[in-house]
Amino acid sequence: MRVVERINDVRSTVKEWKSQGLKVGFVPTMGYLHEGHESLIKKASEENNKVVVSIFVNPIQFGPKEDLASYPRDLKRDSEICERAGANLIFHPENEEMYFNDFSTFVDMNGLTNGLCGKSRPIHFRGVCTVVSKLFNIVAPDRAYFGEKDAQQLAVVKRMVRDLNIDVEIVGCPIVREEDGLAKSSRNTYLSEEERAAATILNKSLMLGKEEIQNGQRNSASIIKIIEDSIKSEKLARIDYVEIVDSSSLEKVEEINKSVLVAIAVFIGKTRLIDNFTYEL
Amino acid sequence: MRVVERINDVRSTVKEWKSQGLKVGFVPTMGYLHEGHESLIKKASEENNKVVVSIFVNPIQFGPKEDLASYPRDLKRDSEICERAGANLIFHPENEEMYFNDFSTFVDMNGLTNGLCGKSRPIHFRGVCTVVSKLFNIVAPDRAYFGEKDAQQLAVVKRMVRDLNIDVEIVGCPIVREEDGLAKSSRNTYLSEEERAAATILNKSLMLGKEEIQNGQRNSASIIKIIEDSIKSEKLARIDYVEIVDSSSLEKVEEINKSVLVAIAVFIGKTRLIDNFTYEL
Repeated sequence: MRVVERINDVRSTVKEWKSQGLKVGFVPTMGYLHEGHESLIKKASEENNKVVVSIFVNPIQFGPKEDLASYPRDLKRDSEICERAGANLIFHPENEEMYFNDFSTFVDMNGLTNGLCGKSRPIHFRGVCTVVSKLFNIVAPDRAYFGEKDAQQLAVVKRMVRDLNIDVEIVGCPIVREEDGLAKSSRNTYLSEEERAAATILNKSLMLGKEEIQNGQRNSASIIKIIEDSIKSEKLARIDYVEIVDSSSLEKVEEINKSVLVAIAVFIGKTRLIDNFTYEL
Repeated sequence: MRVVERINDVRSTVKEWKSQGLKVGFVPTMGYLHEGHESLIKKASEENNKVVVSIFVNPIQFGPKEDLASYPRDLKRDSEICERAGANLIFHPENEEMYFNDFSTFVDMNGLTNGLCGKSRPIHFRGVCTVVSKLFNIVAPDRAYFGEKDAQQLAVVKRMVRDLNIDVEIVGCPIVREEDGLAKSSRNTYLSEEERAAATILNKSLMLGKEEIQNGQRNSASIIKIIEDSIKSEKLARIDYVEIVDSSSLEKVEEINKSVLVAIAVFIGKTRLIDNFTYEL
């Protein structure tokens, strides 16, 4: 497995692979990899001849008050995980390789990016769409793998690929959880011991909501209230949002009569965590 | 030469060509082709093994009061010109093939698109960037050809390709003119006989400005005044803008001490025409 920092090195490697008729899978990440990322790389490795992982903490998807500077980084550990999971190439560029000083082009979206995380993170998805476009143009993969934990990101990337006719197949992969149900996230490392215990409230509350739907409840407001009340029972938790939306348009759903995404964002102390489940009807 | 309406037909044809190691040139147009387009297709044909021309009047680059409905269309004539000039494939999609009802992704730009044509056409370059991105993703050419008459468009497309790491070489081609100096444009067909005669004022006025620079004048305001006064001498002409800008950043230049673009937009009756020259220093 090679680690490269230059766009041209990625391009020439992938072109060489493609000239041999090999299929290329791609896993874009911000690094500090956990078992969630590992599952994406493994799946990419099963479904393709070669796998590229990008490790790049993308500055333009962080708001001014967000955790860009403190976002955890550990290339050595990441490299070991990538190699073990079956990656062939890590693309690990500096900011200067990705963004010229007079960088001025953005990929943006209406609709899907307004609600959920887009509400409290107004420039986030513009940054995500722009960097994912760039990475797709650099790597030119056949397939790209995204975790379902970032459900809105997955829906946004799928829509962008459809709208801009990007010739990449987007593959969503299930959330990987800790034994107590907490969704794996690089940001879990921010949590103190006490906060780590409190963070289980996200999945617990979602499960209460799921049970309610399984018991026949179809009114979104009632289900949202049950989830919110459960989260509020945890002193260290502060709700950012609890929403029930159409799984592909991400528009709010009042009565559940189609497949929905039930998604939450909750601050545990200063750490903002997200979780969700999809209910197929 | 084939004419296809489906994205998948373009993709499969180009993939077949590329699998044979052939280079693909691309000329995106809105149709109603003139000798300017023809020169692009000829150049593409000289420099590549295969040439794709797209003919698509892109609705999202027209403002609500602009000429989308009346924009001239003639596929039969366009096909003959393409064939004669050496094209191998015309991509001529319906709007529905290009834009879903819930289309919601846009490629946009800061800076370069604010001045010149961007001032009076605020959504124009967002529409251009978006459709050019889509067409590049559909055709996946090695090189794409744009006329220098739309100097701002050429600068914007070059910047977009650089910023988004699009793996396409952009080739600019010189303005083609009528014998009396009027730059070829599909919109020239809008002009009455009297307006057609008046339209020569664009190039005439630019030439006066050029002469002034060649004579050593370096103050942009003085040169702009000479060009404006000349245009105003024509009763049917109304100035949209006369500007002198840096050829790549498109920022206004007060004193000419580097290569500049001198660009104008002028209404002749209801028809908006553009023209320009680049002065290399």
